[in-house]
Amino acid sequence: MTLPFELSMDTLRNKRGIKWGKYPADVIPAWVAEMDFTVAHPIGRAIAETVREQEFGYPQREGRATEAVLADAFAARMQERFGWAADPALVQPLSDLVQGTFAAVWAFSDPGDGVILQLPAYPPFHMAIHDTGRRLIDHHLRSDGERFVQDLDALAAQVDARTRIFLLCNPQNPTGRAFTRAELQAIADFAAARDLIILSDEIHADLVHDDHAHIPIAALGPEVAARTVTITSATKSFNIPGLSCGVMHFGTPELQQRFHARIPHRMLGHPSVIGVDATVAAWRHGQAWLDEVKPHLARMRDKVDAFLTAELPALRWHKPESTYLGWIDCTALNLPGTAHDFFLERARVGFSPGEAFDPEGGRGFARINFATSPRILDMILERMAEAVRSHNRG
Amino acid sequence: MTLPFELSMDTLRNKRGIKWGKYPADVIPAWVAEMDFTVAHPIGRAIAETVREQEFGYPQREGRATEAVLADAFAARMQERFGWAADPALVQPLSDLVQGTFAAVWAFSDPGDGVILQLPAYPPFHMAIHDTGRRLIDHHLRSDGERFVQDLDALAAQVDARTRIFLLCNPQNPTGRAFTRAELQAIADFAAARDLIILSDEIHADLVHDDHAHIPIAALGPEVAARTVTITSATKSFNIPGLSCGVMHFGTPELQQRFHARIPHRMLGHPSVIGVDATVAAWRHGQAWLDEVKPHLARMRDKVDAFLTAELPALRWHKPESTYLGWIDCTALNLPGTAHDFFLERARVGFSPGEAFDPEGGRGFARINFATSPRILDMILERMAEAVRSHNRG
Repeated sequence: MTLPFELSMDTLRNKRGIKWGKYPADVIPAWVAEMDFTVAHPIGRAIAETVREQEFGYPQREGRATEAVLADAFAARMQERFGWAADPALVQPLSDLVQGTFAAVWAFSDPGDGVILQLPAYPPFHMAIHDTGRRLIDHHLRSDGERFVQDLDALAAQVDARTRIFLLCNPQNPTGRAFTRAELQAIADFAAARDLIILSDEIHADLVHDDHAHIPIAALGPEVAARTVTITSATKSFNIPGLSCGVMHFGTPELQQRFHARIPHRMLGHPSVIGVDATVAAWRHGQAWLDEVKPHLARMRDKVDAFLTAELPALRWHKPESTYLGWIDCTALNLPGTAHDFFLERARVGFSPGEAFDPEGGRGFARINFATSPRILDMILERMAEAVRSHNRG
Repeated sequence: MTLPFELSMDTLRNKRGIKWGKYPADVIPAWVAEMDFTVAHPIGRAIAETVREQEFGYPQREGRATEAVLADAFAARMQERFGWAADPALVQPLSDLVQGTFAAVWAFSDPGDGVILQLPAYPPFHMAIHDTGRRLIDHHLRSDGERFVQDLDALAAQVDARTRIFLLCNPQNPTGRAFTRAELQAIADFAAARDLIILSDEIHADLVHDDHAHIPIAALGPEVAARTVTITSATKSFNIPGLSCGVMHFGTPELQQRFHARIPHRMLGHPSVIGVDATVAAWRHGQAWLDEVKPHLARMRDKVDAFLTAELPALRWHKPESTYLGWIDCTALNLPGTAHDFFLERARVGFSPGEAFDPEGGRGFARINFATSPRILDMILERMAEAVRSHNRG
């Protein structure tokens, strides 16, 4: 059976992008957060119209600035999917969430200030703290045996008077946690008690599985919104990161003004017209495609879960509640090097190295991307099992 | 006769962009700097390939980061067209030149510092000084009867110890000047004597007419390069501003380091893959198209020039040496309001208001965009003449 959005191995191998281009041709890539699928038809159609008419001039859409249309599509989507009344007037377009992270860290803290980051974390978040001369307050998520949880009492001991920002990733990459309302409220209370800005990456919001739900932290209430900057995009759930379009939402006009007092609006540039067209099409008309893709992602997750249990009991993960990424603990293999290097060399599978997400706690971990077809995922899993068997024999 | 790159009035009227969308349908727009033409075939082909293959994931090109390919294409083009050895390692991608202007002003000056701007000037340059809390040192270009020239002695009296940046536009928008080597050297000497950064917008470099030549100011020599930040893109000469891709080039690694000490690389985001594909195609393979377009632009310029002389002697301009824009002095009409409003209301032609380029000196001026077909330009000119005749009768 072929999935309606499946791409052949031949097509994938011939893509020019980094996912399939990074490693030698005999390696199956399962690293960067991109899906091996076609995009939603409404996205393709929106791009095709702009391209066919060569509408590459100074753009507007629906008789308005493209940024206004983007902001409206964002707010409508948040209301429809999550019951969150985001305000289109409080939106700053971005080219990606990394830009938004750097800019918000820059605007809401000073060099030497502390920024809380839950670890393991997306490597550019580490960069956004390090490259701006801020100080990492590393808040390690810990396994309670069933899932990764936070220990805010431990965090409280780490925080000082110069801690300014709680950098949250919800749903969390790479652990796949979709934080509960109680967990988010605890973060909000923690931030309120210390007057922290909450910078919340919610790029995986559309990819929450089973009966878990995505709760935008800004939706907890006006007091929380007043200290929350939310960054998101359609690029992850709709598979269009190369089109470089995202948004930053300020919980109040005051937050927006604080931001722009430090960073003029136009210093951030703006997304291309095609990025906006694709994003608006995804948010307005992409759900039918996503409704097909999401159950497939959950099935692939379950396939990995069953395989690890049956064939690779030395490897452990907590079945992700969201995303198409998993955080695999390979420490029981007692590998001499990184899990990434082991699977690359011995299985010819390219994962993301755990060490990039947490230099200490991520040792011996690898992040898997299971957003592919069953046949490719089967190959990945079989290759992993054979490499581990060979390692155990050796 | 139809031009090979001509678009019909019907096609233009049905575009969704701002040029044809801003004004009511009976108005002919001749304002924002965009051409009423199809784009070069290699640009369309490059975009079509990316779109056909849905290569919307994390991109690379030629096995390298897209930013590296963009930087190489830029440097190769500068060498080929202008004999300027720009260094691809000293390139920062931009989404547009306004972003580059804001960022460079931000990085190389502090609030309250002076920024020299030759007037009349592109309105966002005013914003880049005003919105960042810098101080405008307004350096008025003045007509010597044949062209607009600078008076650096007058400027010397305006400059103080807190003046940091000379914001140059070469070729100059809206006057169409292509500065001579002697003029550029005088600016470079002026900047050297006062230790100023030269921020040079060279977006119109490809559009220099007759026997005028574009000289990148950074190409004057290593001492000049060491204080010069050049910003440019393919968006103006190849008519793709909506694709949002440009570059900033630092004359030395030291300048680049000074910039990035203030503004982290990733805070500026990055162009979309389609913006990069289009720009690289334009710079590498677009010249044949430009070789057809440029003589047409010169003919349209000559048409305006002849018409003003013969039919509208009250209106004056200096025939632009470059660009497809002209700076028309309508002050002799003694209009009660702006020239923009007069021609909009009485001629149903939409120019750019001179006041936006220079609030004082631009009064009674309008900027015309003559990058259109002969038939549309004839309509514009006839409508102007009829409006002026009616005004003179009235």
